[in-house]
Amino acid sequence: AFATLDTDRQARRGYPEAVYCAGKTPAQVGLIAADARRHAQVTLFTRAGAEHAAAVLTALPDAVHDPDAGLLAWPPEPPPASGGLVVVVAAGTSDLPVAREALLTARYLGRRTELVVDVGIAGLHRVLGHLDLLRSARVVVVAAGMDGALPGLVAGLVSAPVVALPTSVGYGAAFEGVAPLLTMLNACAPGVAVVNIDNGYGAGHLAAQIAAS
Amino acid sequence: AFATLDTDRQARRGYPEAVYCAGKTPAQVGLIAADARRHAQVTLFTRAGAEHAAAVLTALPDAVHDPDAGLLAWPPEPPPASGGLVVVVAAGTSDLPVAREALLTARYLGRRTELVVDVGIAGLHRVLGHLDLLRSARVVVVAAGMDGALPGLVAGLVSAPVVALPTSVGYGAAFEGVAPLLTMLNACAPGVAVVNIDNGYGAGHLAAQIAAS
Amino acid sequence: AFATLDTDRQARRGYPEAVYCAGKTPAQVGLIAADARRHAQVTLFTRAGAEHAAAVLTALPDAVHDPDAGLLAWPPEPPPASGGLVVVVAAGTSDLPVAREALLTARYLGRRTELVVDVGIAGLHRVLGHLDLLRSARVVVVAAGMDGALPGLVAGLVSAPVVALPTSVGYGAAFEGVAPLLTMLNACAPGVAVVNIDNGYGAGHLAAQIAAS
Amino acid sequence: AFATLDTDRQARRGYPEAVYCAGKTPAQVGLIAADARRHAQVTLFTRAGAEHAAAVLTALPDAVHDPDAGLLAWPPEPPPASGGLVVVVAAGTSDLPVAREALLTARYLGRRTELVVDVGIAGLHRVLGHLDLLRSARVVVVAAGMDGALPGLVAGLVSAPVVALPTSVGYGAAFEGVAPLLTMLNACAPGVAVVNIDNGYGAGHLAAQIAAS
Amino acid sequence: AFATLDTDRQARRGYPEAVYCAGKTPAQVGLIAADARRHAQVTLFTRAGAEHAAAVLTALPDAVHDPDAGLLAWPPEPPPASGGLVVVVAAGTSDLPVAREALLTARYLGRRTELVVDVGIAGLHRVLGHLDLLRSARVVVVAAGMDGALPGLVAGLVSAPVVALPTSVGYGAAFEGVAPLLTMLNACAPGVAVVNIDNGYGAGHLAAQIAAS
Amino acid sequence: AFATLDTDRQARRGYPEAVYCAGKTPAQVGLIAADARRHAQVTLFTRAGAEHAAAVLTALPDAVHDPDAGLLAWPPEPPPASGGLVVVVAAGTSDLPVAREALLTARYLGRRTELVVDVGIAGLHRVLGHLDLLRSARVVVVAAGMDGALPGLVAGLVSAPVVALPTSVGYGAAFEGVAPLLTMLNACAPGVAVVNIDNGYGAGHLAAQIAAS
Amino acid sequence: AFATLDTDRQARRGYPEAVYCAGKTPAQVGLIAADARRHAQVTLFTRAGAEHAAAVLTALPDAVHDPDAGLLAWPPEPPPASGGLVVVVAAGTSDLPVAREALLTARYLGRRTELVVDVGIAGLHRVLGHLDLLRSARVVVVAAGMDGALPGLVAGLVSAPVVALPTSVGYGAAFEGVAPLLTMLNACAPGVAVVNIDNGYGAGHLAAQIAAS
Amino acid sequence: AFATLDTDRQARRGYPEAVYCAGKTPAQVGLIAADARRHAQVTLFTRAGAEHAAAVLTALPDAVHDPDAGLLAWPPEPPPASGGLVVVVAAGTSDLPVAREALLTARYLGRRTELVVDVGIAGLHRVLGHLDLLRSARVVVVAAGMDGALPGLVAGLVSAPVVALPTSVGYGAAFEGVAPLLTMLNACAPGVAVVNIDNGYGAGHLAAQIAAS
Ligand SMILES: Nc1ncnc2c1ncn2[C@@H]1O[C@H](COP(=O)(O)O)[C@@H](O)[C@H]1O
Ligand SMILES: Nc1ncnc2c1ncn2[C@@H]1O[C@H](COP(=O)(O)O)[C@@H](O)[C@H]1O
Ligand SMILES: Nc1ncnc2c1ncn2[C@@H]1O[C@H](COP(=O)(O)O)[C@@H](O)[C@H]1O
Ligand SMILES: Nc1ncnc2c1ncn2[C@@H]1O[C@H](COP(=O)(O)O)[C@@H](O)[C@H]1O
Ligand SMILES: [Mg+2]
Ligand SMILES: [Mg+2]
Ligand SMILES: [Mg+2]
Ligand SMILES: [Mg+2]
Ligand SMILES: [Mg+2]
Ligand SMILES: [Mg+2]
Ligand SMILES: [Mg+2]
Ligand SMILES: [Mg+2]
Repeated sequence: AFATLDTDRQARRGYPEAVYCAGKTPAQVGLIAADARRHAQVTLFTRAGAEHAAAVLTALPDAVHDPDAGLLAWPPEPPPASGGLVVVVAAGTSDLPVAREALLTARYLGRRTELVVDVGIAGLHRVLGHLDLLRSARVVVVAAGMDGALPGLVAGLVSAPVVALPTSVGYGAAFEGVAPLLTMLNACAPGVAVVNIDNGYGAGHLAAQIAAS
Repeated sequence: AFATLDTDRQARRGYPEAVYCAGKTPAQVGLIAADARRHAQVTLFTRAGAEHAAAVLTALPDAVHDPDAGLLAWPPEPPPASGGLVVVVAAGTSDLPVAREALLTARYLGRRTELVVDVGIAGLHRVLGHLDLLRSARVVVVAAGMDGALPGLVAGLVSAPVVALPTSVGYGAAFEGVAPLLTMLNACAPGVAVVNIDNGYGAGHLAAQIAAS
Repeated sequence: AFATLDTDRQARRGYPEAVYCAGKTPAQVGLIAADARRHAQVTLFTRAGAEHAAAVLTALPDAVHDPDAGLLAWPPEPPPASGGLVVVVAAGTSDLPVAREALLTARYLGRRTELVVDVGIAGLHRVLGHLDLLRSARVVVVAAGMDGALPGLVAGLVSAPVVALPTSVGYGAAFEGVAPLLTMLNACAPGVAVVNIDNGYGAGHLAAQIAAS
Repeated sequence: AFATLDTDRQARRGYPEAVYCAGKTPAQVGLIAADARRHAQVTLFTRAGAEHAAAVLTALPDAVHDPDAGLLAWPPEPPPASGGLVVVVAAGTSDLPVAREALLTARYLGRRTELVVDVGIAGLHRVLGHLDLLRSARVVVVAAGMDGALPGLVAGLVSAPVVALPTSVGYGAAFEGVAPLLTMLNACAPGVAVVNIDNGYGAGHLAAQIAAS
Repeated sequence: AFATLDTDRQARRGYPEAVYCAGKTPAQVGLIAADARRHAQVTLFTRAGAEHAAAVLTALPDAVHDPDAGLLAWPPEPPPASGGLVVVVAAGTSDLPVAREALLTARYLGRRTELVVDVGIAGLHRVLGHLDLLRSARVVVVAAGMDGALPGLVAGLVSAPVVALPTSVGYGAAFEGVAPLLTMLNACAPGVAVVNIDNGYGAGHLAAQIAAS
Repeated sequence: AFATLDTDRQARRGYPEAVYCAGKTPAQVGLIAADARRHAQVTLFTRAGAEHAAAVLTALPDAVHDPDAGLLAWPPEPPPASGGLVVVVAAGTSDLPVAREALLTARYLGRRTELVVDVGIAGLHRVLGHLDLLRSARVVVVAAGMDGALPGLVAGLVSAPVVALPTSVGYGAAFEGVAPLLTMLNACAPGVAVVNIDNGYGAGHLAAQIAAS
Repeated sequence: AFATLDTDRQARRGYPEAVYCAGKTPAQVGLIAADARRHAQVTLFTRAGAEHAAAVLTALPDAVHDPDAGLLAWPPEPPPASGGLVVVVAAGTSDLPVAREALLTARYLGRRTELVVDVGIAGLHRVLGHLDLLRSARVVVVAAGMDGALPGLVAGLVSAPVVALPTSVGYGAAFEGVAPLLTMLNACAPGVAVVNIDNGYGAGHLAAQIAAS
Repeated sequence: AFATLDTDRQARRGYPEAVYCAGKTPAQVGLIAADARRHAQVTLFTRAGAEHAAAVLTALPDAVHDPDAGLLAWPPEPPPASGGLVVVVAAGTSDLPVAREALLTARYLGRRTELVVDVGIAGLHRVLGHLDLLRSARVVVVAAGMDGALPGLVAGLVSAPVVALPTSVGYGAAFEGVAPLLTMLNACAPGVAVVNIDNGYGAGHLAAQIAAS
C-alpha cells in the first residue's frame, strides 16, 4: 500500500484529488490510473514526465495529455462549465507551459477559460489592449517570471481578484522564481493572491474555487 | 504635492483607496484625512501609529479606531453588507491583531464577517469544533505564525478558497514570518491564496473581492 | 590509509558505525566492506549508489540492499528486537524512500518497526484512522516534504516524542526541503525532534536510541 | 473569547499546556492565570516579560519565577520525579538562560535534572571531565551558540540521544542562531535531535518525553 | 589622523568627495567640515543624524540641510546647472526622503532637476500623466519600495536610461528593500541601472554623470 | 498566437526589441526570425542555444552568430556608430562570453566599442596600464565574477559612469554571482550602475543609452 | 558555578583565555576580573559594554580600557613584543573601532603593531602611498565594510598573508557585513584569511599567531 | 589576447600565478601551458577537468596531474622545501580531494607537508591520537564538510594558526558547504583562518605564506 487516495475529497470539497507524479514511479502512477478507471473517477495527473504519461495512457488511452504542462486529465471531456469566467494571462511566451497548466486545471474543474499571451509591462500597450476581456473575468490568473510585475499592474485595473503565479523564468538574480514571488507578495495594488513558484495546478484550482459563483 | 491619491480607484475597481500611514508624517496623514472629509469619501487608514491616529481623529473625530490593528475607518458606519460570508480565523491569541485588521477591512468593504480565535493544530479538536461555520463561508481567512500549518489544514476541509495570512509571531527559525509564509506557499491542500506577512489589510481586501458574489 | 573507521563506536555508544558512501569511490567502499566481513562487524552502508552497492555486494554477497533508500545492511538478519515500537509515517508516496531508510536503520539497530504511508493533512481522516497504532509507539518518525505540517499534527495527538524528517519533495518555494524543515522547527506542538533534510539514517538512529527503553 | 486553552492536552498527551506569553497582553495572561488557579491546573508560562510575570504573580502569588529564563511555574512544587535523568549542558555562560528554561521545563514535567555549565570545545578537557555524569543520563540537552559544535561532540561520546538547542549567542555570521542551528542539523555523530533557536521550553519538553522511561 | 580625504577626487573624476557620516563621531565630522571651509571645497555630508548636522552647521553655518534626507551641502548655492535634465520620481509618499537625497545630490553636482511624487503602478493613470516630462529627461531616477515595479515600467516608456533606487519601504516579505531590489535587477524592460537600497546619494551621483552631456 | 512582439518599441524608445530565446522552442524562435525578415526589422536574439541558433540561421542565413555569448544579430551589418565610446572590460578570461554579449549589444545598438581582457585586481598594474583608454570612454562596462571588485575600482579612476556586470564565475561562496552582485551594489566609489547576473545584453543596452550623446 | 575558565589555555596554546562579556551579567564579569587579579593572570575582556567595563575596573582599576573597541586589558602593560610586525588597516573611518580591537589584541598577545586609516579603493593612491609599510609586515589585517574590496587588493601587492576582517559598516545590500564577508571569501588574490564580521578580537589573535615567528 | 598573465607576481609576491581553468576553453589553457614552457615558469593549473588536463599534458607532458584534485603542476619537481611544516587534515574520506589540492599547492609553493585522514569529531579519540604531529606544525589546514566542527576543535589544542577549509560534502541543510563555512567563521576557539568552500588552492597558498618562516 504505497498510496492512500483521498477519495472522500470530491464529497468533502467538491473537487476531485489530483495525482502528483513527481516523486512516484511510473508503475505506481499506472496502478493509480487503473484504479481511476475502475471507479470511473475524474482525475488529474500533474508534474508527469514522459514515462509517467506513458503509464497513464496505457491505463487510460483516451486521457488528454499536455506534455509541456506535464498534465493529464481523464475522462477527456471536461465537466460542463459553470460559474464565472477565468482569464489566464502569460506575461511572456516562456511562461506559457505553466499558464496552460493553470488554464487546463480550471477547465477540468468546471470553469470557462480564456488565454492571453506575451503582454509584459515592457510594452504596456499590449496588456491595455485586453482590458475589456480582463474586466469581464470573475478572476484573472497572471503567470510571470523575471520581475513579476504584471499581476500587480492587472490588479490595479480590474475589480476581480488576481491569482499571481510566479514562474522560474529568468536568470541570475531571479533565483528560480524567488524574485517574481516576492514582487507579487509585495504588490502595491491589493487583490493579489499568490501561489507557489511554477504551481500552475494550484493557481488553476484556486481560480476555479473563486469563480465557482 | 506630497501625495497623488488614486481617487479614481472606487470607480475603476469598486473599492476605495486605503492610506498606508507607515512612511508618512502625522501632518501628511492629517491633511489626507481632511481631504477625505471634504470629498465625503470612504477611507481606510492602515499601519497607523498613535500619532497618525491622533492626526486622523482631529480631522475625522467620528472615525472608528482599532489601535491593536493600527486601523482607522471613516465614516464609522460600514456600508450595508452584501455578497458571501467572510470567516476570519486566528490560529493563536498572538495572531489576533492582524486577524482583526483583515476582518475590519472586509467589513468596511461591505462583507459580513465572523471571527474564530486560538484553534491551532496543537489541539486539533478546537478547529474541528467550528467546521459548520467554516463550511458556511464564501471564503476563509486564516492568520497563523510559527509553523503556519492551519490554513492548509482548513483548506482540506472546506470547498471555499482560503486566504492564508502569515504573521511574524514566533521566534528563532520563524524568521519574522518567513517560516509560516513558506508553509502556506507549499500547502499540500490546493485552494490556498497567500498574502504578505502581517498584511491583514491585503487579506481582508482579497477576501472581500472573492466574497463579492 | 583513506579511512579511520570508528571501530570503538559499538563499545562506546552501543551502536555500530555506518559507512557514508556519498563521497567515497566504489573501490574504497569495497575495501571497507571486505574489512567488515573480516571482523564480522555489523555494518550499515548509507547513501549508496548503484556502483557502491555492487562493490559492497561483491564483498558481502548476502547483504540486504534497498536501492530506493540507498541502504545496505550486513549481516542480513537484524539483531533481535528490543525496546519500544518505532512507527514510521510517510506523509506522501514520494517520501517513501527516505522513510524506508529510517525504518530499516531502526530495525537494524534492534527495534520493532511499523510503516504508515500517504496520510498527509490534505485529507485529515487518513492519519486519524491510524491513531491507535500511533499511540502505541515509543517514538514516531514522520517524513514529510512540501509544507511539512504532519509531524507537528501527530505530535499534538500522542504522548511519545516525534522525530520530524523533512524531505526534499516539493518544488519552487519548498527550496529542496527548507520549507518543511522550518515548519518542523516551528511546530506549535512540543515534542518534535528535527533532523537534517532527507536524513533517513539519522532519523532512524535517533528513533532507535529513544526507543531503547 | 481571546483564547481557547487546550485543556484536553493533559489527558490526551500526558503533559499540560504551556502559555506562550510573547504575543499576549499582560491582562490576557493574568486572566489565564486566574483560570489556572480556579481549575487547580499545573501550568507553565513561557516567554514572559516583566509585565507578564507581574500579572501571573498577582493571580498566583506562590508561582515560581525565573526572570532570566522568562518562565513561571505553578504550583511551585514540581511533580514527583519519575523516568530517567535529564542532564542539561550550557556550552557557555551566555547560554545559561536558555539552558535553565530547558531544565526547569523538564523538572516541572516530572524528571530529575542536572546542570553543567561553560564546557565549550575551545577547552576540550572541560566537557571530558563530566563524562560519567553525561553517560548516566537517559537524555542530554546541550545548549550552544556560535559554532554550535558541542552537541555533536557529546553525541559521539554517549549512547543516549542528545537534544541540541541552538542559541542566538554570537555575532556577525552567527546570524542570531542560524549558524549553530545548521551545525546541529549536520552533526557528524548520529543521535542529535534539533529544536528551534532559543527554544528552551521545547528542548525541555522533548527531553521529558524521551526520558519518560 | 582618523581620515584621509580623497581631495584629489575633484581633479581626477570631476566630482568632489562626499562625507559618509554614519560611522563617524560628530566631533570627527565637525573637524572635516572645518577643513572644508579652510580649503573652500564643495562638500556633501550624507547619512547625517541630528548630532552630525549640528556639528557641520557649527563649522559651516550657511550649509543647506535636509533633515529627512540626512543631507547637508556646502556652499549653499549649487554650481551653475549644465548637461541634461534629471527627473526624480518617488513611487509613493514614503519614498520621498530617499528621492530627495538623490535629487539634491544631482543638483549639487551641477544638474537641473524635477520631482514627481506618488505615481505607483496601483493607479497607472498617474504616471502616464507625466509622460511628457519623463520623455524630456536625459535620465530618470525612480525610487520605489514594496514591489519596486515602477522603474521597469518607466524604462519601457522612455528612451533615456532609468536609475532604479530601491527603498526599504514596505513590510514582511519586502525584507527591508530586498524585494524591490530584486524586481529592479530583473526588470523586463532594458535600460535599468540599479543602485543599493536607500542609496539616494549614489543614485543622484550616477544620474549626474549620465546627464553630464 | 504564442508571441506579441513589441514592434512599437523602436518608435517609442529608439531601440528595437530583442528576442529572449531561453524559454522558447526552436520552432517558435524560427517563426519570429522569419517575421523579422518579412518586416526587414533589426533584431537581436539573446540566450540562444545551438538549436535556437540553427532555427534563426535557417530563416536569416546571413545573421551574425556568437555562440559563446549565445547572441545572434540581424542584419549582420551594425548601424553606423554614433554617440560616445563604450569600453567593455572583462576582469578574467572566464568573464569573456558575458562581456562579449555586452559589447555586441552596444555595437548593434549603434555605438563604438573597445574590449579589455583579464585585468583583475589581483595584479593591479594590468588595469592601470589601460587608464588612457578607460578615461576616453563615455561609459565603461566592467564584467567580473568572484569578488566583483573591479567595477568599483575603475569607477574611482574615471569620470564616466561604470556599468557593473556581475558574472556567475567562481564557486562556493560566490553563490552563482551573488557575491560579485553584492560587492557592486556596495561599491565605495559612486558612479556604479548594476545589472543582473550574467546579463550582458542588459549591460550593453544600458551602456548604449548612456553613451547616446 | 556559572563559568569554567580555560585556565589551561596559556600552557596548552601559549595565549591566555579572553572573557567574552556580551552574554554575561556585569556581576559575573566582575567576579571573573577579581579572579584574574588573584591569580595574576593576563586577561582580555572583549565585547564589554559600559556596565561590564565598570565592573572590571572596580576589580582591576589599572586595566586599560578602549570603550569604542569594547576591550579591556590587564595588566595594563603589554608583554614585551616579539615576532614580526602586524600592520592593521582600516578602509574607512567607520571601520576604526573594529580595527583597534584587532590591533590591541595583537599588541597584548605580544606583537609590534602599526595602524593605517581611511585608504579605501575609491581613492587608490591612498593605499599605494603606504606600500613600504605594508611590505614590511609579517601579516596585514585589513578591516573593511561596504564592498570589502580592500583586503584582496592589498593581498595582491604583498607577500605576507592578509587577515580580512569584514565590518557591519554600510547599509541596504551590505546586510550587516555579509557583502564584505562574501567579497573577502571570494578574493581573486590568494593569501586572504577571513574571520567573522566585526570580530576584531579574532583577527588580532590570528595575526599574533601568524606573526609569532 | 584572451589572457593577461600576471607574470610580475613571482617578483612582487614571491609566489607564481596559478591558472584557474574552470571558465577557460581547453584550447586557451593549452596556449597558456605552451607559454609557461617557453618562459620556463613554475605554474599551477587549478580546477582542471579532463579536457583541460589533456591540453596541459600535450604542452607539458611531464607535468604532475592529480585528477581528483583537478590540479596540475609543472615542472614536476616541487621547489626545495623551506619554512615550517604544513599539516593537512581531512575530516572524512570525502574531504580528501580538496585536502589534497591544499597539500599539493603548499608543497609546490615550497613547504614540507603531512596528511591526516578521517578523524572527524564523531570519534574523538582519532584526532587526539595525532596530537604530537599537529603540535609540530607551523600551520594546520583542516578540511571538513557537514558540521565543519573539526577546525575549531583542532585550534583549541595547538598554538599554531588553523586554516579552515569548508567542503561541499554533506546534504540537505549543509547547503553545499554553507553550514561548515558558518561553523568555521563562528569557531569558539580563536586562531581560525577561513577560506572559500572547496578552495583547496587558496587554503594551501595561505598555509604556505603562514609557514614561510
Ligand atoms: N497595509 C497595507 N499593506 C499593503 N498595501 C497597502 C496597505 N495600506 C494601503 N496599501 C496600499 O498601498 C498603496 C499605496 O499607499 P500610499 O502610500 O498611501 O499611496 C495604496 O494604494 C493602498 O492600496
Ligand atoms: N546517511 C548519513 N547521514 C548522516 N551521517 C551519516 C550517514 N551515514 C553515515 N553517517 C555518519 O557519518 C560519519 C562519517 O562517515 P565516514 O565518512 O564513512 O567516516 C559516520 O560516523 C556515520 O555515523
Ligand atoms: N550615503 C552614501 N552611500 C554610499 N557611499 C557614500 C555615501 N556617502 C559617501 N559615500 C562614499 O563613501 C566613501 C567613503 O566615505 P568616508 O567614510 O567618508 O571616507 C566616500 O568616498 C563617498 O564617495
Ligand atoms: N582554484 C582557484 N580558486 C580561487 N582562485 C584561484 C584558483 N586558481 C587560480 N586562482 C586565482 O585566480 C586568479 C584568476 O585566474 P585567471 O582567470 O587564470 O586569470 C589567478 O590570479 C589565481 O591566483
Ligand atoms: Mg515578449
Ligand atoms: Mg493557544
Ligand atoms: Mg497522497
Ligand atoms: Mg567560557
Ligand atoms: Mg499613494
Ligand atoms: Mg587572469
Ligand atoms: Mg574616506
Ligand atoms: Mg569516517
